[in-house]
Amino acid sequence: MKKIRWGIIAPGKIAHEFAHDFQFVKYGELKAVASRSQERADNFAARYGIPKAYGSYAELYADKEIDAIYVATPHTFHHENSTDALNSGKAVLCEKPITVNTAECDSLIALAKEKNQYLMEGMWTYFLPAIQKASEWINTGRIGRVLSIKADFGNAVPFDAESRMYNPALSGGTLLDMGIYPLAITWLIYKKDPINISVISRKASTGVDNDVNMQFEYEDEVASLHSSFRSKLNNHAYIIGEKGYVDLPDFWHAHECLLCDNSDKVIDRFEDNRKGVGFEFEIDSVSHDILNGLKQSEVMPLAYSRKLQEHMQMVMEKF
Amino acid sequence: MKKIRWGIIAPGKIAHEFAHDFQFVKYGELKAVASRSQERADNFAARYGIPKAYGSYAELYADKEIDAIYVATPHTFHHENSTDALNSGKAVLCEKPITVNTAECDSLIALAKEKNQYLMEGMWTYFLPAIQKASEWINTGRIGRVLSIKADFGNAVPFDAESRMYNPALSGGTLLDMGIYPLAITWLIYKKDPINISVISRKASTGVDNDVNMQFEYEDEVASLHSSFRSKLNNHAYIIGEKGYVDLPDFWHAHECLLCDNSDKVIDRFEDNRKGVGFEFEIDSVSHDILNGLKQSEVMPLAYSRKLQEHMQMVMEKF
Repeated sequence: MKKIRWGIIAPGKIAHEFAHDFQFVKYGELKAVASRSQERADNFAARYGIPKAYGSYAELYADKEIDAIYVATPHTFHHENSTDALNSGKAVLCEKPITVNTAECDSLIALAKEKNQYLMEGMWTYFLPAIQKASEWINTGRIGRVLSIKADFGNAVPFDAESRMYNPALSGGTLLDMGIYPLAITWLIYKKDPINISVISRKASTGVDNDVNMQFEYEDEVASLHSSFRSKLNNHAYIIGEKGYVDLPDFWHAHECLLCDNSDKVIDRFEDNRKGVGFEFEIDSVSHDILNGLKQSEVMPLAYSRKLQEHMQMVMEKF
Repeated sequence: MKKIRWGIIAPGKIAHEFAHDFQFVKYGELKAVASRSQERADNFAARYGIPKAYGSYAELYADKEIDAIYVATPHTFHHENSTDALNSGKAVLCEKPITVNTAECDSLIALAKEKNQYLMEGMWTYFLPAIQKASEWINTGRIGRVLSIKADFGNAVPFDAESRMYNPALSGGTLLDMGIYPLAITWLIYKKDPINISVISRKASTGVDNDVNMQFEYEDEVASLHSSFRSKLNNHAYIIGEKGYVDLPDFWHAHECLLCDNSDKVIDRFEDNRKGVGFEFEIDSVSHDILNGLKQSEVMPLAYSRKLQEHMQMVMEKF
């Protein structure tokens, strides 16, 4: 069976998890890694048994034996790296957030269309079996009409002015890094724009947002969302309907979901028994898409990425 | 040992729980109940072994052997009943909300002062051992600086236009009935006014609020609060600090609390092993206060009641 041959750009923390999960992947194989440092590329390649290690991104773009590139650089480089990768004729899976504003997002979407090339934002959460099960429960009416969503993602991240998280030059801040998950789960369920939003944001001394509390109002629904570097939040997503609710513990990398009635009785429960970190589902879905000639994902289409960018921009305008 | 002799006005649902808990009370005894219906008073008295059953409130006010009256009528009658009880020379414990607006609240507070009589709003939650333990943890710095509070209280309450909950003539609506608890736990921790609030409210066909989602902003802190008749909410209170958080499951009648660090590790846990519903702590505290000649509670002073009324009014102005 033909497999998509992947290359990774930037062997950082998330690239490690991504590479780790290739052992559980059916439709793709990891063939190369590129770093600005040959040594880092070599070390990463050795650790995951990757045949090729490049000391520059350009070498990876030029490699004719690579079909798809996973862009795992800091946010501010996503646009440049994805542009270069698309221009080199590769399919692109770009880590979230796909870009740091809507203009950059539009530019990438236009380029992918022009090049007739596959592009997807790495919203891996959408591909997790627990998220898909939760969606199925909700779409088949098991909690009735959805009225409210609550989703937090907060961890106490020690301040370090130089770190990607706190560095404004790298588009640091909790919203783009963590807040995108509560926004994404909300979009997945409601699939419409809020009619009003209220935001309380706090800033670290470097000027980046380190706590963002959001209230999204819809015609009849509401979403209470929160992301933080200041404190450990609950990190469940609750999708609350008339007849019950779905509880997704640690929804951003969900392993399980619970369907509860209005008496808190668990009436259904799903646990994936995955072996990987959770990237295997995304990698296989994207590889399968590319093998089948698709130009974007049906699970995470580019229009969704554009919406998430819009919503984050709406929130940032209220900072 | 001398005990405070209590009388109850209005043998409704909450009065049953209140009366039930007298078996666990040290400083008070239940001596009378009054209803507008002699039959209801008789039935209630028989059930809880109460010596006197009155078919009118006036008879209870006139009873020289009663020291304190528990007002358990619907919200709209609290002001009138508490006024009459204070005027008859009784100490008053009035069920929450103490009144339905700040003007009524001021009137009652002034009357209690004029009569030099004890008055307290029945914020029984403040007297629960788990709430007191949580406060102790927080006040001794065990979660560091508090940054965020999340507290929901929502149950799916079937619509019934005639019920107290949905009847505007009885000041129905979720805010006064359930929303006061999230506001009260927030006040207990922050003890200051929000500098800004944002509210998303929904209304039932009778015009009363059936879902109120609130975002309270403080100088550096935030509170996300929600009360609902539309859906079952999580109903925990999370008090979130820099170093960890306190989790209070079903905080409005809390049996337990958990102290967790930023890795979600439970580092301390408290469970009360109470025998009653939880009213015994409030009844004993108020009885003890009265026995000691106090005119208001140090746990739930009248200034707190005034603040809760103000905050509810601020929220209602945003409906």
